[in-house]
Amino acid sequence: MKLAIDAMGGDLAPVAPVHATIECAAKFSDTEFILIGHEAKIREAGGTFPANVRVVHTDVTIETGDEPVRAVRRKPNSSLVMAATMVKESAADVMLSAGSTGALVASGLLAIGRLQGIDRPALAPVLPTFNGKGVLLLDAGATMDANAHNLLQYAQMGCAYSRQVRDIPNPRVALLNVGTEPGKGNALTKEAFQLLESSSLDFVGNIEAREVLDGDADVVVCDGFVGNVVLKLIEGVGLGIFGLLKEQLTSSFTSKLGAVMLKPSLRGIRDKFDYAEYGAAPFLGVNGGCLKAHGSSSKRAWVVALEQARKFAAQDLIGQFSHELKD
Amino acid sequence: MKLAIDAMGGDLAPVAPVHATIECAAKFSDTEFILIGHEAKIREAGGTFPANVRVVHTDVTIETGDEPVRAVRRKPNSSLVMAATMVKESAADVMLSAGSTGALVASGLLAIGRLQGIDRPALAPVLPTFNGKGVLLLDAGATMDANAHNLLQYAQMGCAYSRQVRDIPNPRVALLNVGTEPGKGNALTKEAFQLLESSSLDFVGNIEAREVLDGDADVVVCDGFVGNVVLKLIEGVGLGIFGLLKEQLTSSFTSKLGAVMLKPSLRGIRDKFDYAEYGAAPFLGVNGGCLKAHGSSSKRAWVVALEQARKFAAQDLIGQFSHELKD
Repeated sequence: MKLAIDAMGGDLAPVAPVHATIECAAKFSDTEFILIGHEAKIREAGGTFPANVRVVHTDVTIETGDEPVRAVRRKPNSSLVMAATMVKESAADVMLSAGSTGALVASGLLAIGRLQGIDRPALAPVLPTFNGKGVLLLDAGATMDANAHNLLQYAQMGCAYSRQVRDIPNPRVALLNVGTEPGKGNALTKEAFQLLESSSLDFVGNIEAREVLDGDADVVVCDGFVGNVVLKLIEGVGLGIFGLLKEQLTSSFTSKLGAVMLKPSLRGIRDKFDYAEYGAAPFLGVNGGCLKAHGSSSKRAWVVALEQARKFAAQDLIGQFSHELKD
Repeated sequence: MKLAIDAMGGDLAPVAPVHATIECAAKFSDTEFILIGHEAKIREAGGTFPANVRVVHTDVTIETGDEPVRAVRRKPNSSLVMAATMVKESAADVMLSAGSTGALVASGLLAIGRLQGIDRPALAPVLPTFNGKGVLLLDAGATMDANAHNLLQYAQMGCAYSRQVRDIPNPRVALLNVGTEPGKGNALTKEAFQLLESSSLDFVGNIEAREVLDGDADVVVCDGFVGNVVLKLIEGVGLGIFGLLKEQLTSSFTSKLGAVMLKPSLRGIRDKFDYAEYGAAPFLGVNGGCLKAHGSSSKRAWVVALEQARKFAAQDLIGQFSHELKD
């Protein structure tokens, strides 16, 4: 197996991806790890590179401010587009990047291309749940105006991914909606409900936003606009509450003392919301493995993402998708 | 001024609305408080009723499971529909209910009717923000498939309400979107952006879900599907985190001791998220005052909602809306 890693994307690049790669390469001798980026910086970031790590040099990167589609077209030699091109040309099985989501989606669509039969690929992050298992959300923002058939395909892809990579034999699919009763929702969700109910998936019906994080479904589908709002709102509310906690806990001597006693408990809660443990978001529906790691991925988050990428490559997910779509 | 109160709606009815009414009636002698519901139960719930409290008896109520539109049509003598009819017939200036949102929306549309020039009325709750000021969100779920013009009207109504009832002289309006740059979003938000930018409102541009609770805008507009998801997700994430906190804080002797020391701090945080202090959600765009109190409204929440209803009645908001819509 071969993994193409954009070593220059993300807040902690190249140090975090390089260190994680070295750790994983020592563990998985059956896998070749291809680090793409500025070679001198990559070598400087790392220590001794195992034999199954290869560095491919480029000094071009896509910056956060770049308009994604234009950047992907104009910078074929950027670390991100080179990783995608390797997947396209079967020089790698899966690519990973912690760079801009927009640019990753554009690379997936333009450099790798869509899987036959898939109208709209979808970004599929795992959201943290209160039971610690996580829930796969599609689409988190790849397509802004989706139709009901797109949502059905999101569900099919989400189930295949959950089975093969998340080890959930019978994933329960829910449709994000404004009420649990059938017939609720906007034109899109009403139509999608019908399609999902007639499918062979284990469709458990509508789910309200209030219950998404309870962990009662394994796969939740919605259009990319709504999914992006959900993803960012959870992040905003979580960060805000923990910010207030921190502020309050250091506001007086008594609360500081109390905070010391509670440190392990509070860390336990924060860890449940630690994106690092939930891995990268696959961009499902493109013709090859394409994973988006969190922008502020630590070495730990990169290790989880690299292990996930190996599993993605090992399970022939692309073949699985083609099979699911025939149902 | 006359307020029509559905005394039977909500988890704590009739006790909470009756107690709050008695408290407010003693404070505001210029206002008549009309409690609508089962007279014996209302009298039993209260103590001595001030002279400006009137009880209107009915033993019909709309239940949580009732299909809203059908219930409103078939139960004209329910406490909710009687309250709405009083507003329609100018027997009351504003109505309040803590009953089902769907039934309140249906009563507003069917019994009160739309304000001339408004295509789609909108539910406008105040979301808690981390700076404690709150942000008005429209539409929180009255209309599922809105168009760009509807969103512009939401902004206009939200500004008028913020000025008159929330004492914000120059409300800043933002459009909920997936990115801050102009040109981001789905077809609806792209078109709405143009309309808002050409309007005379203080439009501050797109806002991402992550920033909604930071308090940088006073009015945030989105379609009712998205708004409902936002409202419920904030509730779900907040409740979930506080639930985990409670669980962790009572998990060991040390953490229990720490929790006692932190009690005031933690209560301070929880209070920032206390819907009771943010009042009821007005259903804006119907031809009269129509307020939805939170389903689990306590006496305190009812007091805040009743004071808000008085202000709504005193400020001629309906006249203000007509004025705003001419801009």
